[in-house]
Amino acid sequence: MKPVKAIKINKNMKVSELVENMKEAGFGAGKITEASRIMKKMFNDKECKVFLGVAGAMVPAGMKEVIIDLLNDTDIFVTTGANLTHDLIEALGEKHYQGEDMEDSELHKKGLDRIYNVYMKNKVYVTLEKFFELNFSEFQKCSNIRELLWKIGELCPGNGILKTCWKKKIPIFCPALADSGIGLMIWGRIAAGKKINIDAFDDMKEIIDFAWTSKKNGIIYIGGGTPKNFIQQSLQFSKGADYGIQITTDRAEPGGSSGAPLKEGISWGKMKEKAEFVDIFCDATIALPLILAAIR
Amino acid sequence: MKPVKAIKINKNMKVSELVENMKEAGFGAGKITEASRIMKKMFNDKECKVFLGVAGAMVPAGMKEVIIDLLNDTDIFVTTGANLTHDLIEALGEKHYQGEDMEDSELHKKGLDRIYNVYMKNKVYVTLEKFFELNFSEFQKCSNIRELLWKIGELCPGNGILKTCWKKKIPIFCPALADSGIGLMIWGRIAAGKKINIDAFDDMKEIIDFAWTSKKNGIIYIGGGTPKNFIQQSLQFSKGADYGIQITTDRAEPGGSSGAPLKEGISWGKMKEKAEFVDIFCDATIALPLILAAIR
Amino acid sequence: MKPVKAIKINKNMKVSELVENMKEAGFGAGKITEASRIMKKMFNDKECKVFLGVAGAMVPAGMKEVIIDLLNDTDIFVTTGANLTHDLIEALGEKHYQGEDMEDSELHKKGLDRIYNVYMKNKVYVTLEKFFELNFSEFQKCSNIRELLWKIGELCPGNGILKTCWKKKIPIFCPALADSGIGLMIWGRIAAGKKINIDAFDDMKEIIDFAWTSKKNGIIYIGGGTPKNFIQQSLQFSKGADYGIQITTDRAEPGGSSGAPLKEGISWGKMKEKAEFVDIFCDATIALPLILAAIR
Amino acid sequence: MKPVKAIKINKNMKVSELVENMKEAGFGAGKITEASRIMKKMFNDKECKVFLGVAGAMVPAGMKEVIIDLLNDTDIFVTTGANLTHDLIEALGEKHYQGEDMEDSELHKKGLDRIYNVYMKNKVYVTLEKFFELNFSEFQKCSNIRELLWKIGELCPGNGILKTCWKKKIPIFCPALADSGIGLMIWGRIAAGKKINIDAFDDMKEIIDFAWTSKKNGIIYIGGGTPKNFIQQSLQFSKGADYGIQITTDRAEPGGSSGAPLKEGISWGKMKEKAEFVDIFCDATIALPLILAAIR
Repeated sequence: MKPVKAIKINKNMKVSELVENMKEAGFGAGKITEASRIMKKMFNDKECKVFLGVAGAMVPAGMKEVIIDLLNDTDIFVTTGANLTHDLIEALGEKHYQGEDMEDSELHKKGLDRIYNVYMKNKVYVTLEKFFELNFSEFQKCSNIRELLWKIGELCPGNGILKTCWKKKIPIFCPALADSGIGLMIWGRIAAGKKINIDAFDDMKEIIDFAWTSKKNGIIYIGGGTPKNFIQQSLQFSKGADYGIQITTDRAEPGGSSGAPLKEGISWGKMKEKAEFVDIFCDATIALPLILAAIR
Repeated sequence: MKPVKAIKINKNMKVSELVENMKEAGFGAGKITEASRIMKKMFNDKECKVFLGVAGAMVPAGMKEVIIDLLNDTDIFVTTGANLTHDLIEALGEKHYQGEDMEDSELHKKGLDRIYNVYMKNKVYVTLEKFFELNFSEFQKCSNIRELLWKIGELCPGNGILKTCWKKKIPIFCPALADSGIGLMIWGRIAAGKKINIDAFDDMKEIIDFAWTSKKNGIIYIGGGTPKNFIQQSLQFSKGADYGIQITTDRAEPGGSSGAPLKEGISWGKMKEKAEFVDIFCDATIALPLILAAIR
Repeated sequence: MKPVKAIKINKNMKVSELVENMKEAGFGAGKITEASRIMKKMFNDKECKVFLGVAGAMVPAGMKEVIIDLLNDTDIFVTTGANLTHDLIEALGEKHYQGEDMEDSELHKKGLDRIYNVYMKNKVYVTLEKFFELNFSEFQKCSNIRELLWKIGELCPGNGILKTCWKKKIPIFCPALADSGIGLMIWGRIAAGKKINIDAFDDMKEIIDFAWTSKKNGIIYIGGGTPKNFIQQSLQFSKGADYGIQITTDRAEPGGSSGAPLKEGISWGKMKEKAEFVDIFCDATIALPLILAAIR
Repeated sequence: MKPVKAIKINKNMKVSELVENMKEAGFGAGKITEASRIMKKMFNDKECKVFLGVAGAMVPAGMKEVIIDLLNDTDIFVTTGANLTHDLIEALGEKHYQGEDMEDSELHKKGLDRIYNVYMKNKVYVTLEKFFELNFSEFQKCSNIRELLWKIGELCPGNGILKTCWKKKIPIFCPALADSGIGLMIWGRIAAGKKINIDAFDDMKEIIDFAWTSKKNGIIYIGGGTPKNFIQQSLQFSKGADYGIQITTDRAEPGGSSGAPLKEGISWGKMKEKAEFVDIFCDATIALPLILAAIR
C-alpha cells in the first residue's frame, strides 16, 4: 500500500506531467497513468505483437489521427466496417461536421445523418458509389476481407487509416464488413449483376497464426463489439495476452463481451494470469488522447 | 398531459396487470408498458415485417426460450455468432451454469469459462468439434451464412434457436459469424485442409429485399452491436421502420451505434418520423421477459 | 454449480411465477429472484429491523404506493427531502404529469418543471406556501427533523408516505431536509421573521440506537445518496447488516457511495461477512415493483 | 456547422495544446474543450458568482489539490460531509492508500475501509475523536453548519479544503453534515452528554441571498447529490445560472437529480435559456484535471 498523493495542476504543464501526477491518485485517474505505462511497455517490448481493436464511431469523432498514431506500434488491426467507411469517406474528400443540436426530423429534411453530436451529409453515399464503381474490377481480384481492405487503402486518393494500413502492411480484419457502408457498396454492385467472391472465414487463419507464432501478445480495445471479440477468440486458442488496455463505458452486468472486464478473460485463457492490464471506464475520445499523448 | 398514477401491487397479480399498472407511471416503468403495447401492435399488424436483432450473451443467461417465443412473430432474425454458438452448445446437450462467485484464475484451473455470473465448461469445444467434424460435408454445400446456419439448425440434435429458425424458415443473419465459436470450428476444418466457400456479402441481398418489399417494418433490438446495425442499414436504403423497441444499457455519449437512441435513426431515414418507438434502459434479462409476458 | 434453466413465458402468468422462473437464469434476471427471496426473508425475520433508504424522484415517477407498501415491513425510513416534498405536493391535492416530450424552454414558458419524463406545475409552490403558512405554529413546536416530518404527515390532508409514516409511527430521517422544497418553505417563514429551531444532529441518536439495539438488520436501498449513506454509517458503528438489497444504476468506478456495491460495506463493518445480499443494476421503477409483486 | 478536425498528438505537448486540439472533435472530446472555455469565461466574468458543488469521494481519490485550486475562483462551495471528513482526516495527518485488490472480508480483518480502489485505516476515527474531544468547546459556540465548518477549518492543524475555505472566507455549505464522519463525531459528544445547537435550516438564507444579489451565476457540479441540488434550488428562487459545467457518470433515465442533464434546469428556471453550459460524461478524476490544467 502506498499513500494517495493529490494531483496538482501546474501552469503550462505538459500532458506527460499531468499523467505522471495522476499516478498516485485513486479511481480513474490512477488508471490513466497505469494505461500509459502498460501501453509504453507493450510498444517497447520487442517480443510482443500488438493487437488493436477499435469499435465505435471513432473517425467521425475526430480520432482518425490518434488511431493512425497508434498504428505506428500496431501489428494487427481489427475494427468495424463503420469506422473504415467513415475513414474512406474522409479519404474521398468528404467531411464530418460539428454543429448545433438539431431535431432528427429536421436533419432528415436537410439530408444530414446524425452520429450523436456529429453530422454527415447523406450525399457522401454518392461519392462512395463512384469510388466503388470506378474501382470494382480491382476489388474483384480480392478473395478475403483483409485483401479487399488493403486494396481500398491502396486505391483511395486521400490519407487515413486504410491508406496507412496498406502502406505499412498492417493486416486489417473486419469480420462484419458486410455490416457497413462499404458492405452496402459491394451489395450495390452485386445487385447490378457484378460478381465478387470474398470468403467469410478466410481471414481467421492469419489472425490466429499471428497469435500462435508471437512470443507475447498485447491488446488494446477501444470499445468492445466484434473487434474485441475477434481478437479475444484468436488469443483463446493460442496463448493469452501479456498486456491489456480496455477503454469502454459499457456495463458488465448485462453480460455482453463489450462490457466484460479484461480479467474475465483469465478464466477463458484469453488473458494470462500474470498479465499487466487495466480497464478504463471512459469515453475513448477523452481517455485515449490523454493516455497516448503522455508517452509520445 | 395526463396525471401520473401510482403503480399498485396486488396480491397474486398477473404480469399483464403489473405492466398495465405501470402505464401511467414515469421514468422506465411507463416505458415498459409502452414497449408491450408497441410489441403487440407490430405483431398484430399483418402488413408489418418484424426484424429481431439480438446481441449480448442471451443464451447463457437463460433467455433462449424467450427468444424462441419471440421468433413466433419474427420475420427476420439477426444475432451474434456467440449467441448461436451457445445455442448450439445447448442443442448438443451441454449446459451453462450458475454458481458461486469465483476468482478467474481459479476458474481457469477448473476449466470453466466465465460470462459475468454464468459459467461454461471449456470442454464444450470438444463436443462442438465432433459435431462439425461429423457434419462438415453437409456444411460444405452451403454458400452463404444464412444457408449454413439453417443447415446447422437442421442437423443439430436438440431444440433451440437454430432448430426453430430452420423449422420455421426464419432467415438468420449473422454477418460476423467468423467471430464466434462456430467460426472457430469452421477455421479448424480449413486449417486441417478442408474447403468451404461461404460468401461474406451474399446475405445482404436477402435482408435488403425484405426491407424493400415489406409494407411496414418493425424492429426489436436486444443490445446493439452488429445485429442492430445490420438491420438499421437494411432499413436505411429501403424505408424506415414504423415500430421500434430497443433494450440496452449502453450510453449514447461515446457515440457508438449500440448506445444510440432510436430517434437518431430518423435523421438517417432508418426510422420513420411518425414511427411508434421506445428505448428501454434496462438489462434485457429483466425487461424482456416482463414486456413479453404481459402480452402472451 | 447448478445448470442455467431458461426463463419460460406462459399465458397469463403471475408475477410470482415469472420471478420464480427467473431463478435459474443468469445476469440480472436471477438477481431479481434473489432480491425477492432476501426481501421476503428479512420481512419475515422477527429479529430483524428493516432500514429502507429511498433516493431519486420516486414519487413523481408513480412509485408512491410501492413505497407505502414497503413501509408495511419497514422499521426505519430514510429518504430525500425531494421525495417528501413531492409526496406532500400530492397529499395537498396537486399532481405530477406524463406528457409529450417538450423543449425545456417551452416548458419554462408554460410553468412546467421537468423531472426526466414527468412534469409538475410550478404553481404547486403556492399550494405548499399556503400549507406551511397555515401550520407553521405547529411546526415551531418540533425540535428535530423526524418530529417535523411526522407533524407534516399528521397535518397534511391527503394520504401518502408522510401520512403513513406518521400513522404507523415509522421514524423518517432526512438529514438534508434543508435541501428540498420543504426546506425552502421553512426558509420562507424564517425570511419573513418567524422562528423555528430544528437541530441538525438530533436525529442521529435515534437511528444509531435502532442499529445498536436490534438483533439483526436488513437494508433496502433504492438509489444511493444521503439515504443510503445515513443508514450505512449507523450500521458501521453498531453492527453490520444481515440482509441487503440495493437497486441502482450508478457506476462503481467513480468511487461515490451511491454506486458502491454492497460488498464494499464488508470492509467497513457495515455489512456482515455472512450477510445475504444482492445488487440490482436496474431502474428502480422497473425492478422494485417486480421484486415486491412476487412476494405479495 | 464546422468540419470535425482530428485530434493530433504531438511530442511533449502541453495539456492546453491537447485540449485546444480536441476543440473540433466530436463526442466527449469537444465537450472537454467547451468545459475549459466556459470555466475560464465564468472565472473571468467579474459579475459572476461561482457556485462549486462537489459530491463523490474526491479527497480519497487524490483530488484535494484540484479542488483547492478551483476554490481560488469559487464564491460558494457546497459539498458532502464525506468529502469534508476525508479532508479533515488528511489535515490531521492521516492518509488514504492505493493498493492491491483485496477481498473485503480480508480488508475488514486488517482494519482497512475500502472506497472503490482506495483504502483508509479504520483507526483514523480515533484521531478524529481526539480532535473533536479537544476542540468541542469551540464548536459549541457555532450555531449553523457553515460556522462549524469554518471553525473546524480554523482549528485543524494541517492544510486542505476546510483550511482553505476558512482562510479565504469562502462559505462552505453541507446540508447533510449529520450524514458523515464529522456528524458521527458530533453525535459521539452528544451521546456523552455534551450540548451543541446547530440549526438545520439556518444556512439557507446565506446561499439564497448570494444567488439573489449576484448579477450572474456560474455553476460547476462534480457529481450530483445534495451539493448539486442545494445549489439548484437556491438558483430556482432567485435567477437561473448563466454558465454551467456538470461532470457526472450518472444516468438520466432513472430520473434522479444527480443524473439530470443541465438543460432540464431550464424548465425550472434554474438555468437561463441563453446560458452557456456543457454536460461531461466522465469520471471526474480524469476530466476535471484535464479541464482545469488547460486554463491554468
